[in-house]
Amino acid sequence: MKGLSILGSTGSVGTNVLRVVDAFPDRFRIVGLSAGGNVERLAAQVARYRPCVASVATPAAAEELRRRADLGQTRVEVGEEGGVAVATHPDTAIVVAAAVGAVGLVPTYRALEAGKDVALANKETLVMAGELMVEAARARGGRILPIDSEHCAVHQCLDGRRPEEVRRLVLTASGGPFRKRPRETFAGVTTAEALNHPTWSMGRKISIDSATLMNKGLEVIEARWLFGVPAERVEVLVHPQSVVHSMVEFVDGTVLAQLGVTDMRLPIQYALSYPERWEAAIPGMDFTRGLCLEFEVPDHDRFPCLRLGYQALAGGGTLPAVLNAANEEAVAAFLDERIAFTAIPESIEAVMEAHQTRPVRDLRDVLAADAWAREQARTVLQAS
Amino acid sequence: MKGLSILGSTGSVGTNVLRVVDAFPDRFRIVGLSAGGNVERLAAQVARYRPCVASVATPAAAEELRRRADLGQTRVEVGEEGGVAVATHPDTAIVVAAAVGAVGLVPTYRALEAGKDVALANKETLVMAGELMVEAARARGGRILPIDSEHCAVHQCLDGRRPEEVRRLVLTASGGPFRKRPRETFAGVTTAEALNHPTWSMGRKISIDSATLMNKGLEVIEARWLFGVPAERVEVLVHPQSVVHSMVEFVDGTVLAQLGVTDMRLPIQYALSYPERWEAAIPGMDFTRGLCLEFEVPDHDRFPCLRLGYQALAGGGTLPAVLNAANEEAVAAFLDERIAFTAIPESIEAVMEAHQTRPVRDLRDVLAADAWAREQARTVLQAS
Repeated sequence: MKGLSILGSTGSVGTNVLRVVDAFPDRFRIVGLSAGGNVERLAAQVARYRPCVASVATPAAAEELRRRADLGQTRVEVGEEGGVAVATHPDTAIVVAAAVGAVGLVPTYRALEAGKDVALANKETLVMAGELMVEAARARGGRILPIDSEHCAVHQCLDGRRPEEVRRLVLTASGGPFRKRPRETFAGVTTAEALNHPTWSMGRKISIDSATLMNKGLEVIEARWLFGVPAERVEVLVHPQSVVHSMVEFVDGTVLAQLGVTDMRLPIQYALSYPERWEAAIPGMDFTRGLCLEFEVPDHDRFPCLRLGYQALAGGGTLPAVLNAANEEAVAAFLDERIAFTAIPESIEAVMEAHQTRPVRDLRDVLAADAWAREQARTVLQAS
Repeated sequence: MKGLSILGSTGSVGTNVLRVVDAFPDRFRIVGLSAGGNVERLAAQVARYRPCVASVATPAAAEELRRRADLGQTRVEVGEEGGVAVATHPDTAIVVAAAVGAVGLVPTYRALEAGKDVALANKETLVMAGELMVEAARARGGRILPIDSEHCAVHQCLDGRRPEEVRRLVLTASGGPFRKRPRETFAGVTTAEALNHPTWSMGRKISIDSATLMNKGLEVIEARWLFGVPAERVEVLVHPQSVVHSMVEFVDGTVLAQLGVTDMRLPIQYALSYPERWEAAIPGMDFTRGLCLEFEVPDHDRFPCLRLGYQALAGGGTLPAVLNAANEEAVAAFLDERIAFTAIPESIEAVMEAHQTRPVRDLRDVLAADAWAREQARTVLQAS
């Protein structure tokens, strides 16, 4: 039995991780669980999985957890320190990083520093501190196993092949709910429209990122660090059916693609079982009713966030962390209905332009850039 | 430099093998070449590549070769023995089996017995004697590397994965020129229509096999022996664009697919470079103009040859060799305009029904079944 901890156990990815764990009861023992606000669900998880440690965001949430759950041997921790306790517990061999946004950065980084394998669903951490994280994994022998469906697809297509054998990675994008919506109507996009993803059922933040295509901008950066392939060899292709989850073109001109149903348990299980494949109850592809797979190039005019992702990667240093922070602030403001949909890319670009890019030597540089960008973003967003 | 021999060097696959060899002049030395009727082209190849041995079908062809080519150090051999000399020359490390039909069986088998790697384009040999060939490769340590684009695709998707991890192999079929043609007009199909393959430029025999879908019937049998996956886990899917060359679905529900341009140099190079991948001048996929990939289940009513392939595999023993021989005779008769297109499956089925299936202990059993089936097929074809 492998010890497993989950950062973000009550979210969309976290609950799917536990479904995979349930499907293989002899494979894993849950060592730690951390959650943000959903104490009710965390209490149920604690009752069921009896982890060594459970972590919540605030002391008030910790109080609520103690009230709701019969804790038994489970220790309760709080805040970033609590996340670190979950991520670095000595009984944990693998940590699933499924928190949303920058909040996952420090615990995930500490897990890698502690030599743990990290199954990574939190792309923001690699966007913010990709080089540091890859270096920590290399130095301590842990692996970063992608859970993002696109990167899991690339991981499967590469399956140990060297970056030198890669001509390009092709990340597919569903195109989001506004693939065919005219640009002039973008200012009137409602949050309900933006949250209505055509092919995947996901959390709120990533759904908005899919609608702006920032999700692909972040994934280009993520791919660069996960696979060691430079940005000019990472491409994005819109594929509305979300059946091909991504592709790799090799130097000999051949392309491998990974296909599957849109069920997060698939990439989660692959990350947890790697390098093995375990028989799953998840249905395979159904080809009997026919299938038509379309591919088209993305429209950078309507979706400037994709270009901003490439720009952040080209700028390097602290710029990707700034992109990420400005995006998180803008998405939160849009979800609160404080700004228009079109203000998301506009405000991010304004923050990036105002930023003086610096090299990243350690996590403090990243966190400082993150804090600066959030402050700057709030100023920009108030004005918009 | 690796010594390389080609059985069938003047055909469609053979000439593409030499184009790949030309692209990597430091990698290969041509040791042996064998050809059927095209002595003029073989003479040019001998002049250019200066092989140790060149083999032709008949003494008359040998005479013509001596007349046409300045042979230098090249020894000329004749017939099946000549093919064996090419396939087993001590300087040869890898043999490309690119002859068409049963004529390639003995030399290919001898190459495996001599411990050579065999890059196999001649699917008929695996259909006739799959178990013997796989056993010879295992016993002597040679590898069978598929050149057929479908099996090369599966080979790439598997990339070392065990058969136990495979839920099913999905071989794609273009559907041939008659994918949408009504069944009642099949009797009137002309040879020119049947030779007009929509997506691949290939030899005459395989083009007819594609029009009847017998090509997929043969490939199902080939896949069973190449990958150790039983027939009930090998499926065929019609994919008119011929972009996805085949797929593998694993037990965890994930699917890997190989895509590429329809250029035989791609699978040839992969077989010759395996397990490496070499940078090639062959263009990659062009996604910039958009792409639509369709998949549909094959129509067994209009294309009974596919079902016959599964039946031969289920029957086992000598039955696949009988299927293959009856098909070769029927295709030759159709190309000679001696029979109708619809008589191809009808005659094969009649020959299979008349056959008393026997176990295959060695090559003689296969050759006896082959001879019996050809004789029987000629009788059936004369009556049709």
